[in-house]
Amino acid sequence: MARKFSLEEMQEFTRHMPFNRHLGIEVTKVHWDGITISLNLREEFRNIAKVLHGGVTATMADAAVGMALVRHFAGTMRMSTVELKVNYFRPIWGKHVTARAKLLRVGKQICVGSVDIHDDEGKHAGVALVTYIMLGPREQTKV
Amino acid sequence: MARKFSLEEMQEFTRHMPFNRHLGIEVTKVHWDGITISLNLREEFRNIAKVLHGGVTATMADAAVGMALVRHFAGTMRMSTVELKVNYFRPIWGKHVTARAKLLRVGKQICVGSVDIHDDEGKHAGVALVTYIMLGPREQTKV
Amino acid sequence: MARKFSLEEMQEFTRHMPFNRHLGIEVTKVHWDGITISLNLREEFRNIAKVLHGGVTATMADAAVGMALVRHFAGTMRMSTVELKVNYFRPIWGKHVTARAKLLRVGKQICVGSVDIHDDEGKHAGVALVTYIMLGPREQTKV
Amino acid sequence: MARKFSLEEMQEFTRHMPFNRHLGIEVTKVHWDGITISLNLREEFRNIAKVLHGGVTATMADAAVGMALVRHFAGTMRMSTVELKVNYFRPIWGKHVTARAKLLRVGKQICVGSVDIHDDEGKHAGVALVTYIMLGPREQTKV
Repeated sequence: MARKFSLEEMQEFTRHMPFNRHLGIEVTKVHWDGITISLNLREEFRNIAKVLHGGVTATMADAAVGMALVRHFAGTMRMSTVELKVNYFRPIWGKHVTARAKLLRVGKQICVGSVDIHDDEGKHAGVALVTYIMLGPREQTKV
Repeated sequence: MARKFSLEEMQEFTRHMPFNRHLGIEVTKVHWDGITISLNLREEFRNIAKVLHGGVTATMADAAVGMALVRHFAGTMRMSTVELKVNYFRPIWGKHVTARAKLLRVGKQICVGSVDIHDDEGKHAGVALVTYIMLGPREQTKV
Repeated sequence: MARKFSLEEMQEFTRHMPFNRHLGIEVTKVHWDGITISLNLREEFRNIAKVLHGGVTATMADAAVGMALVRHFAGTMRMSTVELKVNYFRPIWGKHVTARAKLLRVGKQICVGSVDIHDDEGKHAGVALVTYIMLGPREQTKV
Repeated sequence: MARKFSLEEMQEFTRHMPFNRHLGIEVTKVHWDGITISLNLREEFRNIAKVLHGGVTATMADAAVGMALVRHFAGTMRMSTVELKVNYFRPIWGKHVTARAKLLRVGKQICVGSVDIHDDEGKHAGVALVTYIMLGPREQTKV
Protein backbone atom coordinates (compact mmCIF):
# COMPACT_ATOMS: atom_id res chain seq x y z
CA MET A 1 0.00 0.00 0.00
CA ALA A 2 1.34 3.39 -1.01
CA ARG A 3 1.91 6.14 1.48
CA LYS A 4 -0.98 8.55 2.05
CA PHE A 5 -0.69 12.22 2.97
CA SER A 6 -0.79 13.09 6.67
CA LEU A 7 -3.09 15.77 8.08
CA GLU A 8 -0.23 18.29 8.00
CA GLU A 9 0.60 17.49 4.38
CA MET A 10 -3.08 17.89 3.46
CA GLN A 11 -3.22 21.25 5.20
CA GLU A 12 -0.14 22.40 3.32
CA PHE A 13 -1.54 21.09 0.03
CA THR A 14 -4.77 23.03 0.54
CA ARG A 15 -2.87 26.31 0.22
CA HIS A 16 -2.50 25.57 -3.50
CA MET A 17 -6.29 25.38 -4.00
CA PRO A 18 -7.49 28.92 -4.75
CA PHE A 19 -11.27 28.55 -4.41
CA ASN A 20 -11.13 26.32 -1.35
CA ARG A 21 -8.76 28.83 0.22
CA HIS A 22 -10.91 31.77 -0.87
CA LEU A 23 -13.90 30.29 0.97
CA GLY A 24 -11.77 29.20 3.91
CA ILE A 25 -12.13 25.41 3.64
CA GLU A 26 -9.82 23.60 6.07
CA VAL A 27 -8.86 19.94 6.39
CA THR A 28 -9.61 19.03 10.00
CA LYS A 29 -9.24 15.24 10.10
CA VAL A 30 -7.89 12.36 8.10
CA HIS A 31 -9.52 8.93 8.26
CA TRP A 32 -8.41 5.57 6.88
CA ASP A 33 -11.05 5.91 4.16
CA GLY A 34 -11.30 9.66 3.63
CA ILE A 35 -11.08 13.10 5.21
CA THR A 36 -13.17 15.71 7.00
CA ILE A 37 -13.12 19.34 5.92
CA SER A 38 -14.77 22.28 7.62
CA LEU A 39 -15.82 25.81 6.79
CA ASN A 40 -16.71 28.82 8.91
CA LEU A 41 -19.73 30.40 7.28
CA ARG A 42 -19.59 34.07 6.41
CA GLU A 43 -22.58 36.29 5.66
CA GLU A 44 -21.67 36.39 1.99
CA PHE A 45 -22.10 32.60 1.69
CA ARG A 46 -25.84 32.85 2.26
CA ASN A 47 -28.69 33.08 -0.22
CA ILE A 48 -31.75 35.31 -0.25
CA ALA A 49 -33.43 33.22 2.47
CA LYS A 50 -30.40 33.85 4.74
CA VAL A 51 -29.39 30.18 4.74
CA LEU A 52 -26.26 28.67 3.24
CA HIS A 53 -26.26 28.75 -0.59
CA GLY A 54 -26.52 25.26 -2.04
CA GLY A 55 -23.48 26.03 -4.17
CA VAL A 56 -21.27 26.30 -1.10
CA THR A 57 -22.45 22.88 0.07
CA ALA A 58 -21.77 21.47 -3.41
CA THR A 59 -18.31 23.06 -3.31
CA MET A 60 -17.66 21.33 0.02
CA ALA A 61 -18.76 18.00 -1.47
CA ASP A 62 -16.57 18.34 -4.55
CA ALA A 63 -13.62 19.52 -2.49
CA ALA A 64 -13.99 16.81 0.16
CA VAL A 65 -13.86 13.93 -2.31
CA GLY A 66 -11.14 15.61 -4.37
CA MET A 67 -9.02 16.11 -1.28
CA ALA A 68 -9.67 12.56 -0.06
CA LEU A 69 -8.28 11.41 -3.42
CA VAL A 70 -5.32 13.78 -3.17
CA ARG A 71 -4.60 12.21 0.18
CA HIS A 72 -5.14 8.65 -1.03
CA PHE A 73 -2.68 9.07 -3.88
CA ALA A 74 -0.37 11.35 -1.87
CA GLY A 75 -0.79 14.07 -4.50
CA THR A 76 0.64 11.96 -7.34
CA MET A 77 -2.39 11.90 -9.65
CA ARG A 78 -4.06 14.45 -11.89
CA MET A 79 -7.84 14.16 -11.73
CA SER A 80 -11.04 15.87 -12.71
CA THR A 81 -14.64 15.80 -11.45
CA VAL A 82 -16.88 13.81 -13.82
CA GLU A 83 -20.10 14.59 -12.00
CA LEU A 84 -21.50 15.30 -8.57
CA LYS A 85 -24.89 14.99 -6.92
CA VAL A 86 -25.98 16.58 -3.65
CA ASN A 87 -29.14 16.03 -1.60
CA TYR A 88 -30.02 18.85 0.78
CA PHE A 89 -31.85 17.66 3.91
CA ARG A 90 -32.35 20.92 5.80
CA PRO A 91 -31.35 24.58 5.56
CA ILE A 92 -28.04 25.46 7.20
CA TRP A 93 -28.43 28.50 9.49
CA GLY A 94 -25.36 28.11 11.68
CA LYS A 95 -21.81 29.41 11.57
CA HIS A 96 -19.97 26.24 10.67
CA VAL A 97 -20.35 23.24 8.39
CA THR A 98 -18.34 20.02 8.02
CA ALA A 99 -18.09 17.58 5.11
CA ARG A 100 -16.89 14.03 5.77
CA ALA A 101 -15.79 12.30 2.55
CA LYS A 102 -15.50 8.53 2.31
CA LEU A 103 -13.91 6.87 -0.72
CA LEU A 104 -16.28 4.11 -1.83
CA ARG A 105 -14.56 3.06 -5.02
CA VAL A 106 -10.96 3.69 -6.06
CA GLY A 107 -10.48 2.35 -9.57
CA LYS A 108 -7.75 2.88 -12.11
CA GLN A 109 -9.93 5.32 -14.01
CA ILE A 110 -13.03 6.10 -11.97
CA CYS A 111 -13.12 6.95 -8.26
CA VAL A 112 -16.32 7.62 -6.30
CA GLY A 113 -16.78 9.10 -2.86
CA SER A 114 -19.75 9.84 -0.65
CA VAL A 115 -19.97 12.93 1.54
CA ASP A 116 -21.96 13.60 4.70
CA ILE A 117 -22.61 17.25 5.50
CA HIS A 118 -23.30 18.31 9.09
CA ASP A 119 -24.20 21.70 10.54
CA ASP A 120 -22.80 23.15 13.76
CA GLU A 121 -25.51 21.48 15.86
CA GLY A 122 -24.39 18.12 14.50
CA LYS A 123 -27.49 17.75 12.34
CA HIS A 124 -27.20 15.76 9.12
CA ALA A 125 -27.73 18.53 6.57
CA GLY A 126 -27.03 16.72 3.32
CA VAL A 127 -25.31 13.94 1.45
CA ALA A 128 -23.43 13.78 -1.84
CA LEU A 129 -21.94 11.36 -4.34
CA VAL A 130 -18.98 12.60 -6.36
CA THR A 131 -17.31 10.85 -9.31
CA TYR A 132 -13.75 11.65 -10.38
CA ILE A 133 -11.71 10.44 -13.32
CA MET A 134 -7.98 9.85 -12.96
CA LEU A 135 -5.97 11.61 -15.68
CA GLY A 136 -2.58 10.04 -15.01
CA PRO A 137 0.45 10.81 -12.85
CA ARG A 138 1.77 14.30 -12.35
CA GLU A 139 4.77 16.02 -10.95
CA GLN A 140 4.29 15.91 -7.25
CA THR A 141 3.60 19.26 -5.59
CA LYS A 142 6.40 20.03 -3.20
CA VAL A 143 5.31 20.04 0.40
CA MET B 1 -50.89 33.05 -16.64
CA ALA B 2 -49.30 35.05 -13.86
CA ARG B 3 -46.89 37.85 -14.49
CA LYS B 4 -43.20 36.92 -14.62
CA PHE B 5 -40.28 39.13 -13.61
CA SER B 6 -38.62 41.15 -16.35
CA LEU B 7 -34.86 41.19 -16.90
CA GLU B 8 -34.58 44.44 -14.93
CA GLU B 9 -36.59 43.04 -12.01
CA MET B 10 -34.38 39.92 -11.99
CA GLN B 11 -31.26 42.06 -11.95
CA GLU B 12 -32.62 44.07 -9.02
CA PHE B 13 -33.67 40.88 -7.20
CA THR B 14 -30.16 39.45 -7.55
CA ARG B 15 -28.79 42.18 -5.27
CA HIS B 16 -30.52 40.41 -2.38
CA MET B 17 -28.60 37.16 -3.01
CA PRO B 18 -25.36 37.39 -1.02
CA PHE B 19 -23.38 34.46 -2.43
CA ASN B 20 -24.40 35.04 -6.04
CA ARG B 21 -23.45 38.70 -5.57
CA HIS B 22 -20.19 37.77 -3.84
CA LEU B 23 -19.14 35.70 -6.84
CA GLY B 24 -20.48 38.26 -9.32
CA ILE B 25 -23.27 36.22 -10.94
CA GLU B 26 -25.40 38.37 -13.26
CA VAL B 27 -28.70 37.71 -15.01
CA THR B 28 -28.07 38.43 -18.67
CA LYS B 29 -31.20 37.15 -20.44
CA VAL B 30 -34.71 36.02 -19.74
CA HIS B 31 -36.39 33.38 -21.90
CA TRP B 32 -39.98 32.16 -22.01
CA ASP B 33 -38.87 28.97 -20.23
CA GLY B 34 -35.95 30.14 -18.08
CA ILE B 35 -33.01 32.52 -17.76
CA THR B 36 -29.33 32.85 -18.58
CA ILE B 37 -26.82 33.94 -15.96
CA SER B 38 -23.15 34.70 -16.45
CA LEU B 39 -20.03 35.01 -14.36
CA ASN B 40 -16.65 36.59 -14.96
CA LEU B 41 -14.06 34.18 -13.61
CA ARG B 42 -11.52 35.46 -11.13
CA GLU B 43 -8.26 33.75 -10.21
CA GLU B 44 -9.65 32.75 -6.83
CA PHE B 45 -12.42 30.67 -8.44
CA ARG B 46 -9.90 28.15 -9.77
CA ASN B 47 -8.69 24.89 -8.27
CA ILE B 48 -5.19 23.44 -7.98
CA ALA B 49 -5.15 22.53 -11.70
CA LYS B 50 -5.84 26.21 -12.56
CA VAL B 51 -9.27 25.41 -14.03
CA LEU B 52 -12.63 26.49 -12.67
CA HIS B 53 -13.55 24.75 -9.40
CA GLY B 54 -16.48 22.36 -9.85
CA GLY B 55 -18.17 24.06 -6.93
CA VAL B 56 -18.48 27.32 -8.86
CA THR B 57 -20.15 25.49 -11.73
CA ALA B 58 -22.52 23.79 -9.27
CA THR B 59 -23.27 27.20 -7.74
CA MET B 60 -24.13 28.52 -11.20
CA ALA B 61 -26.45 25.55 -11.77
CA ASP B 62 -28.24 25.94 -8.44
CA ALA B 63 -28.51 29.70 -8.90
CA ALA B 64 -29.72 29.50 -12.50
CA VAL B 65 -32.67 27.21 -11.71
CA GLY B 66 -33.47 29.07 -8.49
CA MET B 67 -33.51 32.37 -10.34
CA ALA B 68 -35.59 30.92 -13.19
CA LEU B 69 -38.13 29.93 -10.53
CA VAL B 70 -37.96 33.34 -8.88
CA ARG B 71 -38.75 34.81 -12.27
CA HIS B 72 -41.50 32.31 -13.04
CA PHE B 73 -43.31 33.03 -9.79
CA ALA B 74 -42.37 36.74 -9.84
CA GLY B 75 -40.68 36.35 -6.46
CA THR B 76 -43.86 35.23 -4.68
CA MET B 77 -42.73 31.78 -3.51
CA ARG B 78 -40.37 30.52 -0.84
CA MET B 79 -38.37 27.57 -2.09
CA SER B 80 -35.42 25.35 -1.28
CA THR B 81 -33.08 23.12 -3.29
CA VAL B 82 -33.92 19.44 -2.79
CA GLU B 83 -30.98 18.14 -4.80
CA LEU B 84 -28.76 18.95 -7.72
CA LYS B 85 -26.61 16.97 -10.12
CA VAL B 86 -23.91 18.34 -12.41
CA ASN B 87 -21.99 16.62 -15.20
CA TYR B 88 -18.69 18.25 -16.13
CA PHE B 89 -17.76 17.80 -19.80
CA ARG B 90 -14.48 19.67 -19.99
CA PRO B 91 -12.26 21.89 -17.84
CA ILE B 92 -13.08 25.61 -17.97
CA TRP B 93 -9.94 27.66 -18.58
CA GLY B 94 -11.46 30.91 -19.85
CA LYS B 95 -12.55 34.15 -18.25
CA HIS B 96 -16.30 33.80 -18.51
CA VAL B 97 -18.98 31.17 -18.07
CA THR B 98 -22.73 31.18 -18.75
CA ALA B 99 -25.51 28.98 -17.38
CA ARG B 100 -28.79 28.70 -19.27
CA ALA B 101 -31.58 27.29 -17.08
CA LYS B 102 -34.73 25.82 -18.56
CA LEU B 103 -37.70 24.90 -16.37
CA LEU B 104 -38.74 21.37 -17.31
CA ARG B 105 -41.37 20.75 -14.68
CA VAL B 106 -43.23 23.32 -12.59
CA GLY B 107 -45.42 21.48 -10.12
CA LYS B 108 -47.25 22.66 -7.03
CA GLN B 109 -44.58 21.11 -4.84
CA ILE B 110 -41.65 20.00 -6.98
CA CYS B 111 -40.00 22.02 -9.74
CA VAL B 112 -37.14 20.76 -11.91
CA GLY B 113 -34.84 22.63 -14.24
CA SER B 114 -31.99 21.69 -16.53
CA VAL B 115 -28.92 23.86 -16.98
CA ASP B 116 -26.44 24.08 -19.86
CA ILE B 117 -23.03 25.51 -19.00
CA HIS B 118 -20.91 27.11 -21.72
CA ASP B 119 -17.41 28.53 -21.59
CA ASP B 120 -16.27 31.75 -23.29
CA GLU B 121 -15.46 29.91 -26.53
CA GLY B 122 -19.05 28.71 -26.67
CA LYS B 123 -18.09 25.14 -25.80
CA HIS B 124 -20.60 23.03 -23.92
CA ALA B 125 -18.82 22.59 -20.60
CA GLY B 126 -21.44 20.83 -18.54
CA VAL B 127 -25.06 20.11 -17.81
CA ALA B 128 -27.11 19.96 -14.62
CA LEU B 129 -30.47 18.92 -13.27
CA VAL B 130 -31.74 20.78 -10.20
CA THR B 131 -34.82 19.95 -8.11
CA TYR B 132 -36.53 22.55 -5.92
CA ILE B 133 -39.40 22.23 -3.48
CA MET B 134 -41.92 25.05 -3.10
CA LEU B 135 -42.41 26.06 0.53
CA GLY B 136 -45.43 28.33 0.08
CA PRO B 137 -46.03 32.03 -0.60
CA ARG B 138 -43.96 34.74 0.96
CA GLU B 139 -43.99 38.47 1.35
CA GLN B 140 -42.87 39.80 -1.94
CA THR B 141 -39.43 41.38 -1.96
CA LYS B 142 -39.79 45.03 -2.84
CA VAL B 143 -38.22 45.90 -6.17
CA MET C 1 -42.67 6.22 17.68
CA ALA C 2 -45.14 4.55 15.34
CA ARG C 3 -45.09 0.85 14.69
CA LYS C 4 -43.01 -0.34 11.75
CA PHE C 5 -43.74 -3.37 9.58
CA SER C 6 -42.04 -6.64 10.55
CA LEU C 7 -40.09 -8.77 8.07
CA GLU C 8 -43.15 -10.98 7.58
CA GLU C 9 -45.42 -8.01 6.92
CA MET C 10 -42.91 -6.64 4.39
CA GLN C 11 -42.78 -9.99 2.63
CA GLU C 12 -46.57 -10.08 2.43
CA PHE C 13 -46.69 -6.45 1.22
CA THR C 14 -44.23 -7.24 -1.57
CA ARG C 15 -46.80 -9.51 -3.21
CA HIS C 16 -48.75 -6.38 -4.18
CA MET C 17 -45.79 -4.93 -6.12
CA PRO C 18 -46.05 -6.27 -9.69
CA PHE C 19 -42.64 -5.32 -11.11
CA ASN C 20 -40.69 -6.26 -8.00
CA ARG C 21 -42.53 -9.58 -8.00
CA HIS C 22 -42.00 -10.05 -11.73
CA LEU C 23 -38.24 -9.75 -11.26
CA GLY C 24 -38.26 -11.79 -8.07
CA ILE C 25 -37.16 -9.15 -5.55
CA GLU C 26 -37.44 -10.40 -1.96
CA VAL C 27 -37.15 -8.63 1.37
CA THR C 28 -34.52 -10.55 3.33
CA LYS C 29 -33.84 -8.37 6.37
CA VAL C 30 -35.24 -5.43 8.26
CA HIS C 31 -32.92 -3.03 10.09
CA TRP C 32 -33.69 -0.20 12.49
CA ASP C 33 -32.91 2.28 9.71
CA GLY C 34 -33.94 0.41 6.56
CA ILE C 35 -34.18 -2.94 4.82
CA THR C 36 -32.22 -5.36 2.66
CA ILE C 37 -33.70 -6.83 -0.48
CA SER C 38 -32.21 -9.49 -2.72
CA LEU C 39 -32.64 -10.80 -6.22
CA ASN C 40 -31.61 -14.01 -7.96
CA LEU C 41 -30.30 -13.03 -11.35
CA ARG C 42 -31.77 -14.70 -14.40
CA GLU C 43 -30.21 -14.76 -17.87
CA GLU C 44 -32.79 -12.31 -19.17
CA PHE C 45 -31.62 -9.64 -16.69
CA ARG C 46 -28.29 -9.28 -18.46
CA ASN C 47 -27.21 -6.86 -21.16
CA ILE C 48 -25.23 -7.44 -24.33
CA ALA C 49 -21.96 -7.74 -22.37
CA LYS C 50 -23.52 -10.60 -20.32
CA VAL C 51 -23.42 -8.57 -17.09
CA LEU C 52 -26.40 -7.32 -15.11
CA HIS C 53 -28.30 -4.52 -16.90
CA GLY C 54 -27.94 -1.20 -15.09
CA GLY C 55 -31.70 -0.87 -15.13
CA VAL C 56 -32.10 -3.87 -12.86
CA THR C 57 -29.69 -2.32 -10.35
CA ALA C 58 -31.61 0.96 -10.55
CA THR C 59 -34.86 -0.96 -9.98
CA MET C 60 -33.30 -2.54 -6.87
CA ALA C 61 -32.28 0.92 -5.61
CA ASP C 62 -35.72 2.45 -6.18
CA ALA C 63 -37.46 -0.57 -4.67
CA ALA C 64 -35.16 -0.76 -1.65
CA VAL C 65 -35.77 2.84 -0.56
CA GLY C 66 -39.48 2.64 -1.40
CA MET C 67 -39.83 -0.52 0.67
CA ALA C 68 -37.81 0.94 3.54
CA LEU C 69 -40.33 3.81 3.55
CA VAL C 70 -43.27 1.41 3.37
CA ARG C 71 -41.83 -0.30 6.40
CA HIS C 72 -41.07 2.95 8.24
CA PHE C 73 -44.64 4.19 7.84
CA ALA C 74 -46.14 0.69 8.17
CA GLY C 75 -47.78 1.07 4.78
CA THR C 76 -49.83 4.12 5.75
CA MET C 77 -48.43 6.64 3.26
CA ARG C 78 -48.78 7.16 -0.47
CA MET C 79 -45.50 8.16 -2.03
CA SER C 80 -43.72 8.66 -5.33
CA THR C 81 -40.09 8.67 -6.48
CA VAL C 82 -38.89 12.22 -7.17
CA GLU C 83 -35.50 11.18 -8.50
CA LEU C 84 -32.83 8.56 -8.17
CA LYS C 85 -29.12 8.39 -8.86
CA VAL C 86 -27.00 5.24 -9.11
CA ASN C 87 -23.23 4.86 -9.32
CA TYR C 88 -22.02 1.55 -10.77
CA PHE C 89 -18.67 0.42 -9.37
CA ARG C 90 -18.14 -2.88 -11.18
CA PRO C 91 -19.99 -5.21 -13.53
CA ILE C 92 -22.17 -7.83 -11.81
CA TRP C 93 -21.50 -11.31 -13.21
CA GLY C 94 -22.86 -13.47 -10.42
CA LYS C 95 -26.19 -15.08 -9.67
CA HIS C 96 -27.38 -12.91 -6.83
CA VAL C 97 -27.43 -9.26 -5.81
CA THR C 98 -28.49 -7.49 -2.61
CA ALA C 99 -29.50 -3.89 -1.97
CA ARG C 100 -29.29 -2.47 1.54
CA ALA C 101 -31.35 0.71 1.91
CA LYS C 102 -30.77 3.15 4.75
CA LEU C 103 -33.18 6.03 5.38
CA LEU C 104 -31.05 9.16 5.76
CA ARG C 105 -33.79 11.77 5.96
CA VAL C 106 -37.45 11.23 6.79
CA GLY C 107 -39.24 14.56 6.41
CA LYS C 108 -42.90 15.40 6.24
CA GLN C 109 -42.65 15.88 2.50
CA ILE C 110 -39.25 14.65 1.30
CA CYS C 111 -37.55 11.40 2.29
CA VAL C 112 -34.10 10.33 1.13
CA GLY C 113 -32.39 6.98 1.34
CA SER C 114 -29.01 5.62 0.34
CA VAL C 115 -28.53 2.13 -1.08
CA ASP C 116 -25.49 -0.13 -1.13
CA ILE C 117 -25.47 -2.83 -3.79
CA HIS C 118 -23.40 -5.98 -3.30
CA ASP C 119 -22.80 -8.92 -5.59
CA ASP C 120 -22.73 -12.58 -4.52
CA GLU C 121 -19.02 -12.42 -3.68
CA GLY C 122 -19.78 -9.61 -1.24
CA LYS C 123 -18.16 -6.99 -3.47
CA HIS C 124 -19.50 -3.44 -3.30
CA ALA C 125 -21.00 -3.12 -6.78
CA GLY C 126 -22.72 0.24 -6.55
CA VAL C 127 -24.37 2.92 -4.49
CA ALA C 128 -27.52 4.99 -4.94
CA LEU C 129 -29.38 7.97 -3.53
CA VAL C 130 -33.16 7.96 -3.93
CA THR C 131 -35.57 10.81 -3.14
CA TYR C 132 -39.26 10.21 -2.47
CA ILE C 133 -42.10 12.64 -1.89
CA MET C 134 -44.88 11.77 0.55
CA LEU C 135 -48.33 12.21 -1.01
CA GLY C 136 -50.42 11.82 2.13
CA PRO C 137 -52.09 8.97 4.02
CA ARG C 138 -53.86 6.13 2.29
CA GLU C 139 -56.09 3.25 3.10
CA GLN C 140 -53.86 0.67 4.62
CA THR C 141 -53.30 -2.43 2.50
CA LYS C 142 -54.68 -5.42 4.35
CA VAL C 143 -52.02 -7.86 5.45
CA MET D 1 -16.85 11.00 -39.48
CA ALA D 2 -17.26 7.28 -38.96
CA ARG D 3 -20.31 5.41 -40.14
CA LYS D 4 -23.20 5.13 -37.69
CA PHE D 5 -25.68 2.27 -37.45
CA SER D 6 -28.94 2.66 -39.37
CA LEU D 7 -32.34 2.09 -37.77
CA GLU D 8 -32.41 -1.45 -39.18
CA GLU D 9 -28.95 -2.25 -37.81
CA MET D 10 -29.99 -0.90 -34.38
CA GLN D 11 -33.11 -3.06 -34.42
CA GLU D 12 -31.01 -6.12 -35.26
CA PHE D 13 -28.45 -5.24 -32.57
CA THR D 14 -31.20 -4.98 -29.94
CA ARG D 15 -31.88 -8.71 -30.27
CA HIS D 16 -28.57 -9.33 -28.50
CA MET D 17 -29.67 -7.34 -25.40
CA PRO D 18 -31.45 -9.78 -23.09
CA PHE D 19 -33.06 -7.40 -20.57
CA ASN D 20 -34.14 -4.85 -23.15
CA ARG D 21 -35.63 -7.68 -25.18
CA HIS D 22 -37.25 -9.23 -22.09
CA LEU D 23 -39.07 -5.96 -21.40
CA GLY D 24 -39.82 -5.37 -25.07
CA ILE D 25 -37.79 -2.21 -25.68
CA GLU D 26 -37.70 -1.28 -29.37
CA VAL D 27 -35.65 1.27 -31.29
CA THR D 28 -38.17 3.40 -33.17
CA LYS D 29 -36.11 6.30 -34.55
CA VAL D 30 -32.56 7.35 -35.13
CA HIS D 31 -31.56 11.03 -34.97
CA TRP D 32 -28.32 12.78 -35.87
CA ASP D 33 -27.56 13.12 -32.16
CA GLY D 34 -29.23 10.06 -30.64
CA ILE D 35 -32.11 7.63 -30.80
CA THR D 36 -35.67 7.10 -29.60
CA ILE D 37 -36.73 3.85 -28.00
CA SER D 38 -40.21 2.81 -26.98
CA LEU D 39 -41.87 0.27 -24.73
CA ASN D 40 -45.39 -1.10 -24.51
CA LEU D 41 -46.25 -1.27 -20.83
CA ARG D 42 -47.46 -4.55 -19.41
CA GLU D 43 -49.30 -4.99 -16.11
CA GLU D 44 -46.23 -6.56 -14.53
CA PHE D 45 -44.21 -3.35 -15.07
CA ARG D 46 -46.32 -1.43 -12.55
CA ASN D 47 -45.77 -0.84 -8.86
CA ILE D 48 -48.18 -1.05 -5.95
CA ALA D 49 -49.80 2.28 -6.93
CA LYS D 50 -50.59 0.81 -10.39
CA VAL D 51 -48.25 3.26 -12.16
CA LEU D 52 -45.05 2.42 -14.00
CA HIS D 53 -42.23 1.31 -11.66
CA GLY D 54 -39.41 3.87 -11.55
CA GLY D 55 -36.98 1.07 -12.31
CA VAL D 56 -38.50 0.56 -15.75
CA THR D 57 -38.07 4.24 -16.52
CA ALA D 58 -34.47 4.07 -15.31
CA THR D 59 -33.94 1.01 -17.51
CA MET D 60 -35.26 2.99 -20.49
CA ALA D 61 -32.85 5.85 -19.68
CA ASP D 62 -29.83 3.57 -19.35
CA ALA D 63 -30.76 1.64 -22.49
CA ALA D 64 -31.49 4.76 -24.56
CA VAL D 65 -28.07 6.33 -23.94
CA GLY D 66 -26.29 2.99 -24.26
CA MET D 67 -27.99 2.33 -27.59
CA ALA D 68 -27.31 5.87 -28.82
CA LEU D 69 -23.62 5.14 -28.13
CA VAL D 70 -23.82 1.75 -29.84
CA ARG D 71 -25.21 3.58 -32.84
CA HIS D 72 -22.67 6.39 -32.68
CA PHE D 73 -19.75 3.98 -32.66
CA ALA D 74 -21.49 1.48 -34.97
CA GLY D 75 -21.13 -1.21 -32.31
CA THR D 76 -17.31 -1.04 -32.24
CA MET D 77 -16.81 -0.05 -28.60
CA ARG D 78 -17.16 -1.85 -25.28
CA MET D 79 -18.69 0.40 -22.66
CA SER D 80 -20.16 0.42 -19.20
CA THR D 81 -22.56 2.71 -17.30
CA VAL D 82 -20.68 4.84 -14.75
CA GLU D 83 -23.78 6.39 -13.24
CA LEU D 84 -27.28 7.50 -14.07
CA LYS D 85 -29.76 9.96 -12.62
CA VAL D 86 -33.47 10.14 -13.36
CA ASN D 87 -36.03 12.80 -12.39
CA TYR D 88 -39.64 11.63 -12.41
CA PHE D 89 -42.11 14.41 -13.27
CA ARG D 90 -45.43 12.56 -13.13
CA PRO D 91 -46.75 9.03 -12.72
CA ILE D 92 -47.07 7.03 -15.95
CA TRP D 93 -50.52 5.41 -16.21
CA GLY D 94 -50.69 4.73 -19.94
CA LYS D 95 -49.80 1.81 -22.17
CA HIS D 96 -46.72 3.16 -23.86
CA VAL D 97 -43.60 5.15 -23.03
CA THR D 98 -40.81 6.60 -25.19
CA ALA D 99 -37.26 7.64 -24.30
CA ARG D 100 -35.41 10.05 -26.55
CA ALA D 101 -31.65 10.00 -25.90
CA LYS D 102 -29.39 12.82 -27.02
CA LEU D 103 -25.60 12.50 -26.82
CA LEU D 104 -24.31 15.65 -25.13
CA ARG D 105 -20.68 14.73 -24.77
CA VAL D 106 -18.74 12.06 -26.66
CA GLY D 107 -15.24 11.91 -25.24
CA LYS D 108 -12.48 9.36 -25.62
CA GLN D 109 -13.23 8.01 -22.17
CA ILE D 110 -16.44 9.55 -20.87
CA CYS D 111 -19.69 9.95 -22.80
CA VAL D 112 -22.82 11.61 -21.44
CA GLY D 113 -26.36 11.62 -22.76
CA SER D 114 -29.62 13.17 -21.69
CA VAL D 115 -32.95 11.39 -21.99
CA ASP D 116 -36.49 12.75 -22.24
CA ILE D 117 -39.27 10.37 -21.25
CA HIS D 118 -42.78 10.86 -22.60
CA ASP D 119 -46.00 9.00 -21.87
CA ASP D 120 -48.57 7.99 -24.47
CA GLU D 121 -50.39 11.33 -24.18
CA GLY D 122 -47.16 13.09 -25.11
CA LYS D 123 -46.64 14.42 -21.60
CA HIS D 124 -43.09 14.97 -20.41
CA ALA D 125 -42.84 12.31 -17.72
CA GLY D 126 -39.18 12.52 -16.77
CA VAL D 127 -35.63 13.34 -17.68
CA ALA D 128 -32.31 11.58 -17.13
CA LEU D 129 -28.57 12.07 -17.40
CA VAL D 130 -26.48 8.97 -18.03
CA THR D 131 -22.68 8.70 -17.97
CA TYR D 132 -20.83 5.89 -19.76
CA ILE D 133 -17.15 5.00 -19.84
CA MET D 134 -15.59 3.62 -23.00
CA LEU D 135 -13.63 0.41 -22.36
CA GLY D 136 -11.93 0.08 -25.73
CA PRO D 137 -12.71 -1.55 -29.08
CA ARG D 138 -14.32 -4.91 -29.38
CA GLU D 139 -15.05 -7.51 -31.99
CA GLN D 140 -17.95 -6.16 -33.91
CA THR D 141 -21.23 -7.99 -33.43
CA LYS D 142 -22.30 -9.48 -36.75
CA VAL D 143 -25.39 -7.91 -38.14
